[in-house]
Amino acid sequence: MTRTVTVMSAAVRPLLEARLPDWVEPRWFETGEELLALAPGAEIGWFDTFDFTHAIEAYRRATRARWLSTMAAGVDPFPLALLRERGVVFTNGAGLNALTIAEYAVMGMLAIAKGYRQVVRAQDRREWLTEAPGKRELWGSKALILGAGGIGGRIGELLRGFGVAVAEVRRRPAPGALGPDEWRARLGEFDWIVVAVPATPDTDKLLDADVFAAMKRGAAVLNFARGAVIDQEALMAALDAGQVGAAFLDVTDPEPLPADHPLWGYDNVQITMHLSGRSQETLFHRAADRFCENLARYARGEPLSHVVDLTSGY
Amino acid sequence: MTRTVTVMSAAVRPLLEARLPDWVEPRWFETGEELLALAPGAEIGWFDTFDFTHAIEAYRRATRARWLSTMAAGVDPFPLALLRERGVVFTNGAGLNALTIAEYAVMGMLAIAKGYRQVVRAQDRREWLTEAPGKRELWGSKALILGAGGIGGRIGELLRGFGVAVAEVRRRPAPGALGPDEWRARLGEFDWIVVAVPATPDTDKLLDADVFAAMKRGAAVLNFARGAVIDQEALMAALDAGQVGAAFLDVTDPEPLPADHPLWGYDNVQITMHLSGRSQETLFHRAADRFCENLARYARGEPLSHVVDLTSGY
Repeated sequence: MTRTVTVMSAAVRPLLEARLPDWVEPRWFETGEELLALAPGAEIGWFDTFDFTHAIEAYRRATRARWLSTMAAGVDPFPLALLRERGVVFTNGAGLNALTIAEYAVMGMLAIAKGYRQVVRAQDRREWLTEAPGKRELWGSKALILGAGGIGGRIGELLRGFGVAVAEVRRRPAPGALGPDEWRARLGEFDWIVVAVPATPDTDKLLDADVFAAMKRGAAVLNFARGAVIDQEALMAALDAGQVGAAFLDVTDPEPLPADHPLWGYDNVQITMHLSGRSQETLFHRAADRFCENLARYARGEPLSHVVDLTSGY
Repeated sequence: MTRTVTVMSAAVRPLLEARLPDWVEPRWFETGEELLALAPGAEIGWFDTFDFTHAIEAYRRATRARWLSTMAAGVDPFPLALLRERGVVFTNGAGLNALTIAEYAVMGMLAIAKGYRQVVRAQDRREWLTEAPGKRELWGSKALILGAGGIGGRIGELLRGFGVAVAEVRRRPAPGALGPDEWRARLGEFDWIVVAVPATPDTDKLLDADVFAAMKRGAAVLNFARGAVIDQEALMAALDAGQVGAAFLDVTDPEPLPADHPLWGYDNVQITMHLSGRSQETLFHRAADRFCENLARYARGEPLSHVVDLTSGY
């Protein structure tokens, strides 16, 4: 029996090796260079590495691949058109770090509500504040979640537990969710706008001057999607005008945000350096579980789970 | 008909005046001095004021009082023995700020889990971190809540939504809760120890060197009760030894904590200046609602709600 050449990172070898079926012929790469050398021979490939440039190039070079996998949730940097042209099945990590990012999002909302950054600074000065710098409660507030996939959906679940009235916006119709044409008219209702949409051409600068103007005055914006989803110039203008009360930006445009960028200077903007999804030690484990489950489906000729729609881009 | 002299703060007058029944003869105080002058004539009194010293003294001087009220939840600073001797019914604000404090507690756990204080400091330096300073998730962790009253109970509710396994300790037996003799043997199981007990002689230094030694190494302690509930010297020794991994102290002994106190110097201790319950604008509203409801019960001769047990002290 011919075994299937499967290219994977040595970083996940301890999590995978003992679980691989017999038909898998594993090829482990240690470096980006090794990955580029192995990619053209892969029928199956999971190419994630901290060397992101080499990883993306490896997906381009995997000309024999039938199934390629990533543990990334947002696939906008991948050569989707090329994979579609080649008929590759491309699976992603949607939902794998949803728990982690959703916890970060709730922390961000609470940090805004309680003015926690000012509390931290007072601690560093050894100063005992007598007045709370933030007096908002999540309880009884209203949140709009743009993009209720794995991450946004989990954020909604958590917020409902806090007594937040949650409205979710989904592009693909779903019961109880607002459609892409419905949410703008209702923007004035919400205290929190949480962005967790995929980055696609359709969501580029989705939050622009018009959106900020339609929001409830003083509402907060939190972004866990991609920096490009927000028109940052328009955001800064809305912050200057007091129309947007606070922003919590896990993602920015560009990344890293240069030290002289004016966004750093806003006292009501928290910038968290795309750390939300990295604040865990479980992603590799969860990704390895999903990969093994998909290997079993692949062997049985069944549809894989979490296949990316290479046309819509998520 | 003789009307009942009822002494209340002018600060809550806008919330109460239109709702008072006819039989109430209101006396509003603006200052601590006015309060002390009015207190001896009160049959009913709600004496809370930001001038805490005068308030406590007023409860002492209210020799004609039949019902005295406070919106504080912890009643350890009040002259409970004296009130008991006089046969006064004393009602408190247990639960009124439970929602607020519970939100703060979850924020504290998330801030520990994600190393958020270091993220804030990096923002202030305009530095783009590439490594997350905290990689814990609430999901899948275990929490012990000491004192599952209004505050602790609400913390438990919220944490269960995050996928935290919660064990609650109650002095008064309750279904599913651990009793006061059961929790010590299980201390090694928990990632989080959250303290929300009333401050009574029984809970003085409840968390001592033995408790810290029995905890899971690296677990975190959060205190929303009173500073005296923790033996701070023992806590610092346990932090120094790495046995306690982090502390989030909304309360300290003394308060304010002096600027030269060594607790300020720990990088894994967050001190939040008793702000958790003050981080809201709803307490007066909720307290006024409860006071009005109790006025109606008083008129009907029914037992009041949230009566303090003047012997056990909560």
